[in-house]
Amino acid sequence: MTDAAPAAALARRPADVMKKLVALCKSRGFVFQSSEIYGGLKSAYDYGPLGAELKRNLMGEWWRDMVTTRENVVGIDASIIMHPNVWRASGHAAGFSDPLVDCKVSKERFRADKAPRPTVGSELPITCPDKGVAKDWAEQIEKNFGVALERDGNVLNGLRAISATEFGFFAKGATAPTKTWPWRGYVGPTFGSAFLTDEKQFNLMFRTALGAVDPMQEVAVALAELTAAPDLPAAVEARFGRESGEGVLAKALADFAATKDRAKLLRGVIEHLTAPTLAYLRPETAQAMFVQFKNVLESSGMKPPFGIAQMGKSFRNEVTVEHFIFRSCEFEQMEMEFFCEPGTQKEWMAFWKEARMSWWRRYANYPDDFKFRQHAKDEMAFYADDCYDVEYQYPWGWGELEGIASRTDYDLTQHEKHSGVTLQYVDQEKSDPKTGAKPWKYKPFVIEPAAGATRALLCFLIDAYHEEERVTASGEKETRTVLKLHPRLAPIKCAVLPLVKKDGMPEKAREIIAALLKAGVNAKYDEKASIGKRYAKHDEIGTPYCVTVDGQTLQDGTVTLRDRDTTQQVRLPIAEVVATVKARIEA
Amino acid sequence: MTDAAPAAALARRPADVMKKLVALCKSRGFVFQSSEIYGGLKSAYDYGPLGAELKRNLMGEWWRDMVTTRENVVGIDASIIMHPNVWRASGHAAGFSDPLVDCKVSKERFRADKAPRPTVGSELPITCPDKGVAKDWAEQIEKNFGVALERDGNVLNGLRAISATEFGFFAKGATAPTKTWPWRGYVGPTFGSAFLTDEKQFNLMFRTALGAVDPMQEVAVALAELTAAPDLPAAVEARFGRESGEGVLAKALADFAATKDRAKLLRGVIEHLTAPTLAYLRPETAQAMFVQFKNVLESSGMKPPFGIAQMGKSFRNEVTVEHFIFRSCEFEQMEMEFFCEPGTQKEWMAFWKEARMSWWRRYANYPDDFKFRQHAKDEMAFYADDCYDVEYQYPWGWGELEGIASRTDYDLTQHEKHSGVTLQYVDQEKSDPKTGAKPWKYKPFVIEPAAGATRALLCFLIDAYHEEERVTASGEKETRTVLKLHPRLAPIKCAVLPLVKKDGMPEKAREIIAALLKAGVNAKYDEKASIGKRYAKHDEIGTPYCVTVDGQTLQDGTVTLRDRDTTQQVRLPIAEVVATVKARIEA
Repeated sequence: MTDAAPAAALARRPADVMKKLVALCKSRGFVFQSSEIYGGLKSAYDYGPLGAELKRNLMGEWWRDMVTTRENVVGIDASIIMHPNVWRASGHAAGFSDPLVDCKVSKERFRADKAPRPTVGSELPITCPDKGVAKDWAEQIEKNFGVALERDGNVLNGLRAISATEFGFFAKGATAPTKTWPWRGYVGPTFGSAFLTDEKQFNLMFRTALGAVDPMQEVAVALAELTAAPDLPAAVEARFGRESGEGVLAKALADFAATKDRAKLLRGVIEHLTAPTLAYLRPETAQAMFVQFKNVLESSGMKPPFGIAQMGKSFRNEVTVEHFIFRSCEFEQMEMEFFCEPGTQKEWMAFWKEARMSWWRRYANYPDDFKFRQHAKDEMAFYADDCYDVEYQYPWGWGELEGIASRTDYDLTQHEKHSGVTLQYVDQEKSDPKTGAKPWKYKPFVIEPAAGATRALLCFLIDAYHEEERVTASGEKETRTVLKLHPRLAPIKCAVLPLVKKDGMPEKAREIIAALLKAGVNAKYDEKASIGKRYAKHDEIGTPYCVTVDGQTLQDGTVTLRDRDTTQQVRLPIAEVVATVKARIEA
Repeated sequence: MTDAAPAAALARRPADVMKKLVALCKSRGFVFQSSEIYGGLKSAYDYGPLGAELKRNLMGEWWRDMVTTRENVVGIDASIIMHPNVWRASGHAAGFSDPLVDCKVSKERFRADKAPRPTVGSELPITCPDKGVAKDWAEQIEKNFGVALERDGNVLNGLRAISATEFGFFAKGATAPTKTWPWRGYVGPTFGSAFLTDEKQFNLMFRTALGAVDPMQEVAVALAELTAAPDLPAAVEARFGRESGEGVLAKALADFAATKDRAKLLRGVIEHLTAPTLAYLRPETAQAMFVQFKNVLESSGMKPPFGIAQMGKSFRNEVTVEHFIFRSCEFEQMEMEFFCEPGTQKEWMAFWKEARMSWWRRYANYPDDFKFRQHAKDEMAFYADDCYDVEYQYPWGWGELEGIASRTDYDLTQHEKHSGVTLQYVDQEKSDPKTGAKPWKYKPFVIEPAAGATRALLCFLIDAYHEEERVTASGEKETRTVLKLHPRLAPIKCAVLPLVKKDGMPEKAREIIAALLKAGVNAKYDEKASIGKRYAKHDEIGTPYCVTVDGQTLQDGTVTLRDRDTTQQVRLPIAEVVATVKARIEA
């Protein structure tokens, strides 16, 4: 994710496009706040009648393009709760012992155990990316910590580690500190700050417990007994026995022996007691494709190069939820793992880059709002061969929409190691390049196009949102709000409107609806309000076509077909409505 | 759920149909065990390439029938994690203080705090629904508890509450017990049994925590401090302050004062500390329709009678998972809440019963395997007006597939009470029946057809599974396994098979595939193995039609079209393939 500095607002978008879009989403029934009548949850959103259809259409298009129409890709639909070892293998479950810390100045969040550890006497230069930021931070430090710093370009001097427990501010040329603070022994990795929050245990993943019995009851009973004993560690050992060195309890006991920190020992006991029922909600859909690689291979008869695709919900305890549905804790993904022969990953990366970018642009009014950003070497995971983000120009700047990563055989290797199950393809027709002998047994390399479905929905809503000034028939100026959604994405493809609610027009309109539905076109009958208001409503919700049944219809069997984007109307026989609308949608 | 005594196996089904179906599901890629390479999780299943398509088709058919083609029903797609108060309002979150107990004899599970409490001296008649069951239970009691009971019809006599701590067995005419057991003070509500397991805290719902900071760390720190204090309750009060009477901590402190039970007090502290971040995974999709009732009403312009529908994942910590995908902890539902005027619920119940039953039977080979079972008065929730189950004849007997409940205005009333938000419809055109004045403001009554999507998938797989004896061309007997899935449900609608992998046949086959896909028909190319083996494979995975490209195709442009169920083949021009297949699928 790159939430870069806000780009200059695009002239074609209203300045407050997000505010207007959020309001439209609520008033028209695209997106509601989750549990709104209970004060709302910030972690997720609910999709109303139109949003649910839009999401279905969008994800259906991805599935059609990635699975249905491809000979070499199959789909799966795996469970959200997977075995906890899946997340140990993938590296998502770093465990409860990963302490994270925030820099109070730059707000950078980092792992304390991996942070740089300057020694006593070290200067602590707080290095900033630019002078403006340096100035801002210096002012914050001066204001919040009560010192006057020396400023030297984009490096802030005057801070020094003094002892194992203190660091201080040294005025120019001073040998004694004029002010001291607690010293943690490490600093923020990017900026070198020693002004830090307490260490906290962070969980990226949502934890839950499998099994009907509440694990907290067992925890309460055990802790009541253990903490009543005169010697806590002895009681812990007596109750649970002595564990091997790597166990959670053994670690907690060793830690207690060194630090006498009762909280850490109790934390270890809680972890030990909850471990048997511990489960996580998946933080991504991708791992299931590796975990079920063998079953898919054996049941489908596929052979590399082939892909396994999945769409669905994922859950991440995001520290910051922001930009409406852009970043939420519960969201939907559309991911595919493409398994290919080692050595062919570059050509497949090129193939999928092209395929995915053309997919995004196919549904957009402004294809240039989508671009690639290649990851720098130091930005990629150590096993990654190459990686590109598909970025979209959001109102707050370019940001991630999809990642396309060349992951080598890292994932299959990890799951093979953790599960003990061989995950490879045996190519009977090819020779092993190393031995020259058949068969060639190998772990396929992986290209992973991983897209955010919830983000896709947001970007196509932004792309579609238009305000158009126009002059009405009576000469007044008005603003037309229109969602120029691609016809394949639009929740309703065709509205059928009787001009008035009488003279047999409703009946005729319902006949047309029935014919459209039979042909698989999502059509809606609408007889409320004036015809102008109905057109305006269907412009706002993105309905590409409106068919109107009027007086002439009853005489000559013709109706008008109105185009959302041009507002032009043509007259055509009822018998041609289905074919005409269908052809335009499928164009 | 009624898991009645196993019915006599249906003659038309193989005796071991479940075993065969589970094997086919794995070998062909319909259903895999979740996280199988890690030893598997019993809580859920993963859907392989064919299962994912089957599920998509099945749920798509429900959506099409319930939402797309109905003017008076709209769909929504709400989050899985909802506000915890939703579940307080619905009654799902009975809280951590609800102890559940099992009867050791009848296996009935019940809430201890709501169970009948006979007084000392009371007879404890264990009442059974029928003589056979009574006999069975009497034998169990005699065997497991070592007494000879007097049997009097379907009432087992000789048990009596003696004191606050004991109950006993009294031989006929005896005044002293011949054997005693611990007395809990309450008995099982339905059968009166005092043979009970220990009380356990049960969570039907999966709990999780919202927020990146691990709540267990705070728990460990707080408990370390509190339990080190000389006076635990004083330390708890000092740390958290005195709560009002209904709070979890106040209750725990009062409980501790009475019982000196440290575990319960610690449990209260844990509950208090985890409450701010506590969240549940939804145990049903239905509540979102009530919670978003107002938003949908306001944004969609619907008025009663109208429905809100939703499909998606739900999670329940089932005590027993069983019968393959029949009962699992993670499963999918297809639910609709139909809001109607009070007084009209009977006619709408009749309407939806008919609509739903005809939906189920439409896709079945054996429509009589679906039937209604009306709930008895004492089986329904207190607020329910009427309730029917759609039951299916599973291999182990009739069991639930869908519940159709007349829920009155109970749900909207509950959410109104808990949220403080008015949830009603204001009908400007009608007069309030009580006052005779316009408008009529009322809370709509609700008819809820709530179907299990995962169960639906299982029942249609069972319905489809056939083994047919036949004689091959060479005179040998063989068994043909064929999944007679409805063409709309079948994962692949049409396989296109080149007779051999040369002479331009693959190219011709791929042209046909492209035409089918363009027409929205899920078609698959298949060139592996002999044509006979390919037909057999597509029979097994339920592909309704196979198109074969052969030598004659290259000469006259005709192909064969094979019907899965009859195995008959007809010859037709390539140009007619798409229309013919489409017409048969949509028939």
